[in-house]
Amino acid sequence: MIQVAVLGYGTVGSGVVEVINTNSSSINKKAGEEINIKYVLDLRDFPGDPVQEKIVHDFDIILNDPEIRIIAEVMGGVEPAYTFTKKALLAGKSVCTSNKELVARHGAELLQIARENNSNYLFEASCGGGIPIIRPLNSSLTADEIDEITGILNGTTNYILTEMFEKGSDFADVLKEAQDKGYAERNPEADVEGYDACRKIAILSSLAFGRQVSFEDIYTEGITGITAADIKYVKAMGKTVKLLAYSRKVDGNIYAMVAPEIVGVDDPLYSVNGVFNAIFVHGNVLGDAMFYGSGAGKLPTASAVAADIVDEARHLNKNIMSFWSPEKLELADISSSAKKFFVRVKGNPETDLEKVRTIFGMVQPIVLPEQEGEFGFITDVMSEAAYKEKAEQYGEVINRIRVR
Amino acid sequence: MIQVAVLGYGTVGSGVVEVINTNSSSINKKAGEEINIKYVLDLRDFPGDPVQEKIVHDFDIILNDPEIRIIAEVMGGVEPAYTFTKKALLAGKSVCTSNKELVARHGAELLQIARENNSNYLFEASCGGGIPIIRPLNSSLTADEIDEITGILNGTTNYILTEMFEKGSDFADVLKEAQDKGYAERNPEADVEGYDACRKIAILSSLAFGRQVSFEDIYTEGITGITAADIKYVKAMGKTVKLLAYSRKVDGNIYAMVAPEIVGVDDPLYSVNGVFNAIFVHGNVLGDAMFYGSGAGKLPTASAVAADIVDEARHLNKNIMSFWSPEKLELADISSSAKKFFVRVKGNPETDLEKVRTIFGMVQPIVLPEQEGEFGFITDVMSEAAYKEKAEQYGEVINRIRVR
Repeated sequence: MIQVAVLGYGTVGSGVVEVINTNSSSINKKAGEEINIKYVLDLRDFPGDPVQEKIVHDFDIILNDPEIRIIAEVMGGVEPAYTFTKKALLAGKSVCTSNKELVARHGAELLQIARENNSNYLFEASCGGGIPIIRPLNSSLTADEIDEITGILNGTTNYILTEMFEKGSDFADVLKEAQDKGYAERNPEADVEGYDACRKIAILSSLAFGRQVSFEDIYTEGITGITAADIKYVKAMGKTVKLLAYSRKVDGNIYAMVAPEIVGVDDPLYSVNGVFNAIFVHGNVLGDAMFYGSGAGKLPTASAVAADIVDEARHLNKNIMSFWSPEKLELADISSSAKKFFVRVKGNPETDLEKVRTIFGMVQPIVLPEQEGEFGFITDVMSEAAYKEKAEQYGEVINRIRVR
Repeated sequence: MIQVAVLGYGTVGSGVVEVINTNSSSINKKAGEEINIKYVLDLRDFPGDPVQEKIVHDFDIILNDPEIRIIAEVMGGVEPAYTFTKKALLAGKSVCTSNKELVARHGAELLQIARENNSNYLFEASCGGGIPIIRPLNSSLTADEIDEITGILNGTTNYILTEMFEKGSDFADVLKEAQDKGYAERNPEADVEGYDACRKIAILSSLAFGRQVSFEDIYTEGITGITAADIKYVKAMGKTVKLLAYSRKVDGNIYAMVAPEIVGVDDPLYSVNGVFNAIFVHGNVLGDAMFYGSGAGKLPTASAVAADIVDEARHLNKNIMSFWSPEKLELADISSSAKKFFVRVKGNPETDLEKVRTIFGMVQPIVLPEQEGEFGFITDVMSEAAYKEKAEQYGEVINRIRVR
């Protein structure tokens, strides 16, 4: 029997207990031994809940119990999760987590401690919820040099953009509705400003490129600037808009960014709608691959944590994670990153197209009858810096969205 | 240094050599040791090719060389691949393969021999080419009870259906074009009749349900009966048609089938086009997940084989694959499998709809002006047996396609 402790009995923690209870027979078979949850750490008590008899309030009880081999840290936040994880790994216990803040900030160090102590630090649930992506990157795509990872990594913003697209609604209205349905937090900043996606792409990029990608270095733009009018244009072009988090190797430079981008119908990311997430990966021999599924939610996330527990049970005393070096990966300045831009400008095609073409090149105007006094166009591929300069030169730009 | 032998220097075999040469530094890093191809077994010689110095014609040289720890069997076909694999595993060597015929037929036995000899038998490349699906099923979706796997598992037929859909062409014309482009074999039977997809879903189902699913037991229908006229109706309904290979657990019964099915726009399989493959999985806690990528092709397939080599190098003397029991999984009779059917009948709605409704229920007629003397409709959910009985009762059915 392998004794496990769960740190935190919130949404994910209670999900982990539920998953391990529900699927115990197949989980035990796959782990090769019975998995038993011995402790659940929480500040609260849960009288009447069967978990109550396992509740402890003091982490040291878990740390000092030599029977505990695996700890699922599902508390969230950097502290005290960081201290607890470090102590556990130093004591030779394996830890798995859904905590993206902690992995993004201290992943390299914690992986190294795990390696030095023949234990494991796994974090499948930190990116893409239930979607297997960390383990495939670590153990399936090992014959490839990864040159691109692009993810729809945040379910809340994908839900909002999908609703805006389908109903033509404004951002603020859909956000309110999403909050009422529980798809968005009361304080939605981490989601809608792209911070959540940013931490996740930092983790995926660090793993793919083998060095520390600091989330602070990633240019991050949320979806708050996307309007119903923008979406009308995008729709008229037969495309859609998604909040993409990506890192890409171009001529030896690695660019990383979180921003809304326009996605065409032939792109596998086009039809990833609602709260679903997807991660597109390009390998130099594999070509295109994509992983799709529930990016959040109690049970999908708990499924990923529980799968990490099984993997750790199978690999007691054997480190299996590639670790990424704590050495910092210097991202290239995005000002030299090049792509097409969809631009909405004030003016009308008859009188202003010439000026637009003088600045932006031979673009084709996109005119929506209901959007008076403006038109849109898609530029050729140009650098961020070149775009910025041209936009300033034209002056009256209403909005711009990058095109994948 | 870990010495490897490659059996077969055909398309996949030469791809494996190429991938290991191209990405040697990252592969060696991930394997934890240098991977070296010591032998390539082939009946032919390759004068002038750098591989010539590694070519051997006698398998026993490989079998009897204790330095060889890992063998990539990429010959295809049951014999002599089966004999070679068995001997290698019994000698404690690990084997990986892209050989779906062999895995579908003898996978359970070979996995058991590997387990008894502390070696590994891996076959990521046997299903879905470069798409990681075997390893995720084995080591990521371990907390779930899988209740459905549905795949677009054959690139040739998906290419043909995509072209038929996009160009309105007939099956025979697109097949010829696909053969000219090298996307279809001169003898296309294994692809277009669904036999290839059948073997792959047998492997995936055996792994997911833990017991031997015999491909001979799976009802298999190819795409040769799909016409340009069928596709016109499907298009008019805003849907598409895909060759799906699936197994599904319904009320404790497991149904498996390979057949063309109509797929709606909200289905993640809808936009899997051209030679791409995808595997949709539903787990009882995970919910929906999908894995997408290149289902065939030299380098994507070789990428999967090389990733298996890396995994075997990391796990010398440690068996890591779940094995499926050789005990046969009895599939439920598909006559009780229930779904909707799209049906094209002779007649016209004015005079014949009443008869149709008496037999099939309150269906809505779908009329295409260019298809004179016929109309289509979609039934309610009914069993295969009930459909068959009703179709016989009506008599003049032109075609029917199942609806996912």
